Amino acid sequence: MRALDIIIKKRNGLELSDAEINFLINSYTNGEVPDYQMSAFTMAVFFRKLSRKELSALTATMLHSGNVLDFSNLPGVPVDKHSTGGVGDKISIPLAPAVAACGVLVPMISGRGLGHTGGTLDKLESIPGFSCRFSSEKLKKQIAEIGCCFGAANDEIAPADKKLYELRDVTGTVESIPLISSSIMSKKMAEGIKGLVLDVKYGSGAFMRDPKDAYELAQTMVEIGTSMGTTTVARLTSMEQPIGNMIGHTLEIIESIEVLKNNGPADTTALVIELGAEMLVLGNQADNIESGRSRIKQVLENGLALEKFIAVIKAQGGNTNIVNNYKLLPQAKNQIPLLAQTSGYITEMDTFDLGNACILLGGGRQKTTDTIDPAVGIEMKVRIGDYVKVGQPLCIIHSSGLGEKEASTLIQNALKINIESITPPPLFGPRITL
Amino acid sequence: MRALDIIIKKRNGLELSDAEINFLINSYTNGEVPDYQMSAFTMAVFFRKLSRKELSALTATMLHSGNVLDFSNLPGVPVDKHSTGGVGDKISIPLAPAVAACGVLVPMISGRGLGHTGGTLDKLESIPGFSCRFSSEKLKKQIAEIGCCFGAANDEIAPADKKLYELRDVTGTVESIPLISSSIMSKKMAEGIKGLVLDVKYGSGAFMRDPKDAYELAQTMVEIGTSMGTTTVARLTSMEQPIGNMIGHTLEIIESIEVLKNNGPADTTALVIELGAEMLVLGNQADNIESGRSRIKQVLENGLALEKFIAVIKAQGGNTNIVNNYKLLPQAKNQIPLLAQTSGYITEMDTFDLGNACILLGGGRQKTTDTIDPAVGIEMKVRIGDYVKVGQPLCIIHSSGLGEKEASTLIQNALKINIESITPPPLFGPRITL
Repeated sequence: MRALDIIIKKRNGLELSDAEINFLINSYTNGEVPDYQMSAFTMAVFFRKLSRKELSALTATMLHSGNVLDFSNLPGVPVDKHSTGGVGDKISIPLAPAVAACGVLVPMISGRGLGHTGGTLDKLESIPGFSCRFSSEKLKKQIAEIGCCFGAANDEIAPADKKLYELRDVTGTVESIPLISSSIMSKKMAEGIKGLVLDVKYGSGAFMRDPKDAYELAQTMVEIGTSMGTTTVARLTSMEQPIGNMIGHTLEIIESIEVLKNNGPADTTALVIELGAEMLVLGNQADNIESGRSRIKQVLENGLALEKFIAVIKAQGGNTNIVNNYKLLPQAKNQIPLLAQTSGYITEMDTFDLGNACILLGGGRQKTTDTIDPAVGIEMKVRIGDYVKVGQPLCIIHSSGLGEKEASTLIQNALKINIESITPPPLFGPRITL
Repeated sequence: MRALDIIIKKRNGLELSDAEINFLINSYTNGEVPDYQMSAFTMAVFFRKLSRKELSALTATMLHSGNVLDFSNLPGVPVDKHSTGGVGDKISIPLAPAVAACGVLVPMISGRGLGHTGGTLDKLESIPGFSCRFSSEKLKKQIAEIGCCFGAANDEIAPADKKLYELRDVTGTVESIPLISSSIMSKKMAEGIKGLVLDVKYGSGAFMRDPKDAYELAQTMVEIGTSMGTTTVARLTSMEQPIGNMIGHTLEIIESIEVLKNNGPADTTALVIELGAEMLVLGNQADNIESGRSRIKQVLENGLALEKFIAVIKAQGGNTNIVNNYKLLPQAKNQIPLLAQTSGYITEMDTFDLGNACILLGGGRQKTTDTIDPAVGIEMKVRIGDYVKVGQPLCIIHSSGLGEKEASTLIQNALKINIESITPPPLFGPRITL
């Protein structure tokens, strides 16, 4: 078997066998197939896509290139959630402890932020002392003890995907639905989960702006997961405006804790309830979505979800006092209100640029080696459909002095104010399952 | 400027600027852009193709990555021919001296054989002592003195194309009309020629089997050449059967000399006359094709073409006695007739497999590092349209003992014998010019 023949076969639009995909990916991972052949292959996949059969083979090969966690000796069912990412998307942080408080095991392995979106791990690490570095053994121990953890992907998890993703990132093949799908699914399935809820975002702040692309991505991932034994459900949700009011690492931790105190913004709480209900059904802790919703609401109301989050913070070395004293979190030097320059209705937000404004303030990464200022960010004071008067604050910029002016301009331009009112876009789109 | 952005722009089907193509190719040639980015780019080009403007920019960048020969101080006009390659295609060998004998300068820089076709240089080097290695200076001196040379491409000629071609060869992007066109044209135009005749092959023994693909390739190269100041004319010609009767290095030298003695096979002589006439017109040595044909016929008849070839052999260190004593050329040990197993008309030849049969005998390369046995080959005894009786020889296999059986089977299967007669395919297809 030769890599060149496999590249040409894919290039010509023919379906690859499982053995060919196995050979190519494994040979690439162990260094026998060079980067220059793999990048030609992934570009061919960009144009030719992958069949269902090829997708399963690719995902399985990447999944089994490293360790697969195993929770079969524990009484609960392991279930996870994955979001395709967006601006202000802190949902994992309140969601995982809320679901774990209902008896589902949540071995959540997350990524760092890159580009216009922040990463769950970076946000959690703004809690003094909090660490997301785990060996597989330590992770299993924490799941056994408290049912929830936030871990960083390490070299043991799907190393083939890691190597392939790094190559795609510099060769223009990130934006490929089959490659995105298999990358996400191989990592998630390496968690040894039995169920997976996907939050697939569309709109101005999402990687897939077009709902049709988001639908295709969701459909592809649901097919891969379910065909490989992990029941997978996808919810399409709007990223036409930030989730909640807070954008920025510390600010999003605060907002997450407010959700766990049953005091969060409506949209953020709704996402936790809805995605949590799906997870409870997959984790055999609710018979149907409706009773799942009730249970999540309950643990937000009775404090059990917050209690679980405190247990997680403690187990991962963080200062639990931050829950009742936000001043213990990194604080931004300046709070600058950004005022409306005209009166009218907020009809549109360029959410991508709101994310970019946060990066300009120092609160994001352009390269994986960049450091983050966790204290900076944007506190939104308006949502789509709101009426604002000239001079009224649109948001408060939390800054440490860096990029204030550039960020202000970007935010002003990102918010469209019109005379005519508008109906805000619905938060939830279709639900996709097999 | 970043290579990644250029890859993505091309991938998305947008037209690249001259500056972007310059940057990418030059950065790749000097090692700043890695192979894995360039192979992703060429695969994107495979799918998205290149506009006329992009093609000119790519060709110009590759052309100027090395030395460009300059014959402007000489009285003649430098003109060359390029064939896209086929089985038994020895045309350059009699053509170059014939055209030079008419006063056109022919600085012919050729390639080695690879795959199912032989290379002009390999064939010439079966003449004892003959060398194709030239410095640019020595090449110009030979052109000034005798008007003709056969040179090997060296690192001074279009090094960007050399590096890019080697990468394409292992990453599945050889079969791309824009990349083939710019590769050929950059090398040919580096010869400092004012006119170029292209022999673009189609049919079972050609790289482009489909005449439509061959037409597109020819059209693309004519556009590139003419737009860049080298008047380019293309002739589409059939490769449904071998050119002449001889396949194999020594055998093709003998057949070439027979053409120069005005004693060659009809098709081979016709190609020399037709392509030669085009070259004479481009080289200002004939007013029109018809008078060009007459002049070529004349130098084949009066011995001036053969005399020129002898001068070239002498200048390049070869033994000129071979012209009158073919026994001085490498001799194959065995001559094995392959007999028809049934009577009927030859209706079809898989010319690709006839080329491959020659490789099986040791007379070709699968890898650039393979060595060639120049003595072996196939002497065809039939052409398409001929009637054969059972037991009549189809060809004579010249072998040194290697692969005789496999080659025999391949040849038997390559020749289709039917009861119904057939009109042989015409040798010449359309003529393409701007």
